[in-house]
Amino acid sequence: MIGTAAIVGGGVIGGGWAARFLLNGWDVQVFDPDPEAERKVADVLDNARNALPRLYDAPMPKEGALTYCSTLAEAVDHALWVQESVPERLAVKHAVYRDIQQHAPAGTLIGSSTSGFKPSDLQKGALRPGDILVAHPFNPVYLLPLVELVPSPLTDDLRIERAKDVLDGIGMMPLHIRKEIDAHIADRLLESVWREALWLVRDDIATTREIDDAIRYGFGLRWAQMGLFETYRIAGGEAGMKHFIGQFGPCLEWPWSRLTDVPELDQSLTDKIARQSDEQSDAYSIRELERLRDDNLVGLLRALKDRDSAAGAHLNAHQASFPPAVTVGGEDSELLRLHEVQVLPSWIDYNGHMTEFRYLQVFADASDALLRLIGLDRDYLASGHSYYTSESHIIHRSEARPAERLFVTTQIIEADEKRLHVFHVLRAAGDDRIVATAEQMMLHVDSQSGKVHPARQSIREKLDPLADAHARLARPDAVGRFTGQRRSP
Amino acid sequence: MIGTAAIVGGGVIGGGWAARFLLNGWDVQVFDPDPEAERKVADVLDNARNALPRLYDAPMPKEGALTYCSTLAEAVDHALWVQESVPERLAVKHAVYRDIQQHAPAGTLIGSSTSGFKPSDLQKGALRPGDILVAHPFNPVYLLPLVELVPSPLTDDLRIERAKDVLDGIGMMPLHIRKEIDAHIADRLLESVWREALWLVRDDIATTREIDDAIRYGFGLRWAQMGLFETYRIAGGEAGMKHFIGQFGPCLEWPWSRLTDVPELDQSLTDKIARQSDEQSDAYSIRELERLRDDNLVGLLRALKDRDSAAGAHLNAHQASFPPAVTVGGEDSELLRLHEVQVLPSWIDYNGHMTEFRYLQVFADASDALLRLIGLDRDYLASGHSYYTSESHIIHRSEARPAERLFVTTQIIEADEKRLHVFHVLRAAGDDRIVATAEQMMLHVDSQSGKVHPARQSIREKLDPLADAHARLARPDAVGRFTGQRRSP
Repeated sequence: MIGTAAIVGGGVIGGGWAARFLLNGWDVQVFDPDPEAERKVADVLDNARNALPRLYDAPMPKEGALTYCSTLAEAVDHALWVQESVPERLAVKHAVYRDIQQHAPAGTLIGSSTSGFKPSDLQKGALRPGDILVAHPFNPVYLLPLVELVPSPLTDDLRIERAKDVLDGIGMMPLHIRKEIDAHIADRLLESVWREALWLVRDDIATTREIDDAIRYGFGLRWAQMGLFETYRIAGGEAGMKHFIGQFGPCLEWPWSRLTDVPELDQSLTDKIARQSDEQSDAYSIRELERLRDDNLVGLLRALKDRDSAAGAHLNAHQASFPPAVTVGGEDSELLRLHEVQVLPSWIDYNGHMTEFRYLQVFADASDALLRLIGLDRDYLASGHSYYTSESHIIHRSEARPAERLFVTTQIIEADEKRLHVFHVLRAAGDDRIVATAEQMMLHVDSQSGKVHPARQSIREKLDPLADAHARLARPDAVGRFTGQRRSP
Repeated sequence: MIGTAAIVGGGVIGGGWAARFLLNGWDVQVFDPDPEAERKVADVLDNARNALPRLYDAPMPKEGALTYCSTLAEAVDHALWVQESVPERLAVKHAVYRDIQQHAPAGTLIGSSTSGFKPSDLQKGALRPGDILVAHPFNPVYLLPLVELVPSPLTDDLRIERAKDVLDGIGMMPLHIRKEIDAHIADRLLESVWREALWLVRDDIATTREIDDAIRYGFGLRWAQMGLFETYRIAGGEAGMKHFIGQFGPCLEWPWSRLTDVPELDQSLTDKIARQSDEQSDAYSIRELERLRDDNLVGLLRALKDRDSAAGAHLNAHQASFPPAVTVGGEDSELLRLHEVQVLPSWIDYNGHMTEFRYLQVFADASDALLRLIGLDRDYLASGHSYYTSESHIIHRSEARPAERLFVTTQIIEADEKRLHVFHVLRAAGDDRIVATAEQMMLHVDSQSGKVHPARQSIREKLDPLADAHARLARPDAVGRFTGQRRSP
């Protein structure tokens, strides 16, 4: 599903929502009377464009259109989804909902980014209370998949399903919370830690840096992939969860945390935290910290994605929903031109160069396109035959640049019933320069035995005329060269 | 520093300590009267051998010797460090310390894995109380770097420094906690979350799975790289920490978490948690969950390592301390072996085969390992010089299987001031069969101009002796072959 989203409130959170919708192909209409809002949203978008596409190995949908609106009525016009991220004051939120619902048709869903309020609190006095629900995201909204979706009993199942569809569609992981409660789930857990951490700082047990280190060198790493209970399940060993509770449950009574009080956040404690935080982090500006955080999150998420685990499995599922990348077919020119790509952010390493193995990825995709062209389809594969690559010789000629569009031309050098020898040239679409070449040998195999085996007639009928036509083309210089061979003068 | 460590108590935690010491080159003497201890330690070691070396891009030190001892006296003999991981009962621990100190000389440091006791509690009645301190690790001990190091006032600075040296040496991140307190730091934070989570389960707000998801799709990812305070500093924006506290401080008073009570862990709550945890996780055995967790942690830690950030920066520093792995000689057995990998799930395509470009990824990583070995470090790169790959010729010989462990041997074919010509062989660790080979030519370049440029002296000093030694090795058949060339009969 792709449509128009209205973003009401354009701070860090609203900007994050705007980025998620836009980069997933939605049009976005922002309303925020703050004169700084446009700059703030632009900053977040800048971060998001730098980070989010790096999570995927396929091009994201075409970015939607962004409009800054001068009235709320304009912003919610035609919107399928309104996301409210205004300050955490109930009266302000109520006024905003009244305004939205006067201008938007019935059934327009309003998600609130509230950290603390229950949906029933938000709905009080609304024109159409059932259209309002909590959709609580986590910063940075454009990278972290979690969104707590909390309906009150006034919101029916149909609306909840529609909300899930919208959030799924922009790559989020909606966690449906069935029973509303102040601060939902995650912020209650965060609040507990925050309170205990404040005591530790106040009582000079630890500094802010030491507390952060106690998290990120230890249990923070565990929690990025399994949560609390699954981690403890493992700690319980073969005896399982009951054993763990039996062993560690009694600690609750000792107790190991401050239970009864809330530390007073007076001037002196505030100053102490701010001072320690400066000592810890002020070598970096907030902008730099954001980039550092995003870069780390991209790395962590990609690591999980490679393993198809936790948030990484979620990313893979989302990626599968992207529209297919452009593959240009055509046999009219002499050479085949079957594959076109754009250099993705994730292909660029931290030195700014396209990572070596991505070149082979592009060439292998070009070979796949050729194989599809000569009839290697699902049925042929299912019949137990395939082509395997036996050799690849890549020669690098110039560097591919970030976001550059590239295309591959393919020449069949020789083909018989068992061997398919091809030569690919990777060129930049902009200036036609050669980026790299690849000479590949593919063998037709029986996929059960893995042994070389003659291709079927259906393949030969398509392959042979192509091979015959290409036999009349000049043989590229690089064909038959060995590694390190000097070019002929 | 490398020596002998005594491991007293051989469960999951003791086993994790044994693995850390062993794999970092220490000899380890284990004492645990439990007849199951040997099997338990072996299981943990098995996991550790599978995971820990994958964090590094250089071979770890040669594994130390492991001895299971039938008496405590034997175990502590010649030990530089004694790690106590016996059950959390003070009387048991006191008895163990008396025994240890009767057999070990004065000055032998005893680290306790206790989650909750203060070092002053542990030291009571000890022969030499100042030798006992808390060294509290986090499961899996062989992967997570954090260890809370808590001395009482009876332990002098010299002992604390010695303890840090030992823990640093086995790749841990000792967090020196200056003021002792029950449960140190991390477990107080964990305790807070655990208590709140128990309430949420008891009151049917969320299941164990939903709570885990609320963590691992959201703030868990943040905490794997920055902790609580640095994350909130960013949330505060340019206005910083004080602004954040001003904005979110009041929430503490609302309150968003259960403050005053401890949920009673009665039979019914225990049953509920166990049942929900089964529903969530019992598709996997504990062993499988451990492997999944370790695989994810390796990925997360490597992602941070690539970025030289947080726990990853710590890994890089530890890696730099490894003894140089290469012995230069003239025999076939002395090929370089610098890179080992396990075939990851995402490397396998829908046909069950390892995707073509992943082979080049492995070979390129092996070349990177070689370049690091000859001194291509961060500083060298920053000075504007690098090696670029100009050609790669891959020959496939057999298929890599899902989850298979592979290693690469590397031979330098020729090297001069500009060219570095190498030959890699990718083999399966299980049966030593050749999976693929790659011949690569790398050119030393000025990274500004992208032009070929002579390598600096510092590189030549490391490269030339290796190249000279390898020049005496047989030249592999595949070197100098072109694509499609028939093998000589």
